[in-house]
This record gives sequence, C-alpha cells and structure tokens, in this order.
Amino acid sequence: MAKLTEKRIAFLAAPEGTEQIELTKPWQAVEEAGGRAELVSTGSGEIQAFNHLDKADTFTVDHVVGDVTTADYDALVLPGGVANPDFLRTDEHAVRFIEEFFTVGKPVAAICHAPWTLAEADVVRGRTMTSYPSLQTDLRNAGANWVDEEVVVDAGLITSRGPDDLPAFCATMVDEFAAGPRTVGV
Amino acid sequence: MAKLTEKRIAFLAAPEGTEQIELTKPWQAVEEAGGRAELVSTGSGEIQAFNHLDKADTFTVDHVVGDVTTADYDALVLPGGVANPDFLRTDEHAVRFIEEFFTVGKPVAAICHAPWTLAEADVVRGRTMTSYPSLQTDLRNAGANWVDEEVVVDAGLITSRGPDDLPAFCATMVDEFAAGPRTVGV
Repeated sequence: MAKLTEKRIAFLAAPEGTEQIELTKPWQAVEEAGGRAELVSTGSGEIQAFNHLDKADTFTVDHVVGDVTTADYDALVLPGGVANPDFLRTDEHAVRFIEEFFTVGKPVAAICHAPWTLAEADVVRGRTMTSYPSLQTDLRNAGANWVDEEVVVDAGLITSRGPDDLPAFCATMVDEFAAGPRTVGV
Repeated sequence: MAKLTEKRIAFLAAPEGTEQIELTKPWQAVEEAGGRAELVSTGSGEIQAFNHLDKADTFTVDHVVGDVTTADYDALVLPGGVANPDFLRTDEHAVRFIEEFFTVGKPVAAICHAPWTLAEADVVRGRTMTSYPSLQTDLRNAGANWVDEEVVVDAGLITSRGPDDLPAFCATMVDEFAAGPRTVGV
C-alpha cells in the first residue's frame, strides 16, 4: 500500500484562509501512502487555517515558496478556502511555483477554491476540470472545460469541488501521484 | 448638499463575509447626501460583516433579493469582502438583480472583491474598471479593461480597489448616483 514511498509532496497554502480539512485529509492520505508531505507558504512561521469562516488550527511552514523549486517535489497539492487562493494568486513566487509543475508535467491536485491560482497561472486552457461551483465562470473564462463531478483527472491535474469530495479526491490524488510525471511536449 | 434626496439606494450583501467598512462608509455617504439606503440580501434576518477575516458587527436585512426589483431603486452598491461576492454569485436572484441595473442603465458602484459578481453577470465586457488586485485576471478574462486606479467611472459603473480608496469611491459614487440613469441602447 506504500504507493508514495520516497515521494516528496508539496502542499502550498497562504498564511491565512486555508480550509483546514482540505489540508489535513490530503496530508494524511499522502503520509498513509508512505509519502513525505511538506507545507510550503509565502512566509515562514505558522499558517492560520479556517473551518469555513471561523479560525481553526495553525500549522508550521516547512519551506518558503521562493526557497524551493519544482525539482524538489514529485507533486503539488493545493487546498481550498476562499481567502487562501485569493492571497496566493497575488504572490509571484507562488504563481511561478504552480506554473512550473505544469511545465515539467508533474501532477497537481487542487480542490474547492484552489483552482483560482491555476487561472492566475494560465494553466487551465483546454483542461477538463471542476472546482467549488462559485468559480466555474472564472475557470470557463480562463479557457477550462468546467464540469460538475466529484473528481476529475486531466493529464495529471486532479480537481474536486469541496470537502464532501475529499474521499474521492484523496484516493485519486494518491493514484495519480504514484503514476508519476507525464512526458511533456511529445 | 442633499444630492440624493428621494433616491433609494440598494446595498446588496451576502449573509456572511461582507467587509464592514465597505458597507458602512458608502451607506453613510448615501445618507449624508439625503438618500435612503436599504440592505438587500439573499435571506431575511441579519448579515454577519467582517473586518478582513475576523467577524465584526451584524446588520439587519431590509429586503430579500427575490422580493425587490431594479424598479424599486435608483442605484446599487456592492461592498466587498472575499467571501461576500463568492456567495452572491451562486445565487441566481442576486445575479439577475445586478444584471438588471446594467440592462436599464442605472448606476452601480462596486468595490474590492465585489466585481466578481459583475463577472458572473457578464456585464464587464468592454468596460474600463478596477477591483481588488487579486481578481484582475478574472475580470480581464471576462472581457474588462482592468486598470490600477483608486476610482474608475465607465458609463455609470463606479469601481475601486479596496478600503483605502473609500473616500474617492464614496464621493464619486454620490455624484454618479445624483446624475441618474444613462440612456440605454441609443
């Protein structure tokens, strides 16, 4: 069952506003599969997670986004929370970090409001994907083929709509991360 | 100075997540100009406003959005707060209410994250406007000409970037609301 042995997985989250369960459940799934999960944020210290609009727990940042590169990781997880991607998309290091996973073909899993950062990085054009329903117009306008399904996989991009989809999201994410990078540009 | 005498101004806000100062300052500006401000939301009762990500005060809803129409009002104010438009844009009555102000040419003032609902209503195409910087890509993708200015007026649409722009936003909004509806379709 240790599908992710020796795999290093980045979780990118803003200093405030991450939906806690969308951080902790995928994190647990990565660790249970034998992978190493690391929290990457725009600054050092702690991030403040939320249960919807209420403050929940804090989590210690392992690395600042400008100090690590795509080469350090096998895959990327983007948790949701409405204020989290809204902040991340304004940070150029965060946007570039996300963009590079797509450039090199390493898998990316994004849930709920997280796909806003994918629209910012301009990596959703022509992709079939889902998200929290409120951002479907933004994703369609960014060129995505938005669908209303619990989990969608399109060439290494795994997306889900929100907390209720976490079981399917986590299982699919682990399978895709285990499959490894796609060959890009051939 | 009673520029808005006998004018009735709708403030549309979600049950949770409105940036309090972006509700109270424009409200005060409307009342000081002699106008009548009314809080419209997607449900009756109270709305919970926020200071950024912290809960602030509650405000009593005057009307539910499905029970009033554009004909009842002279202008519309859309306060920001990241979770507020994210919720409003998923409510079909709210989106239709906004859309109708544009159809009939009555002025609309939107600040900070509020323009997300304008992207949802597909009324920003070809418009010069601003917003909180995080949504500039979504607005450009929706067809807007996004600019980084404290207040922008384009044919009855008044937009600003956030709380620091409130003095300019409120003054310009009152002037535009006093000027009344534009002639549409000629």
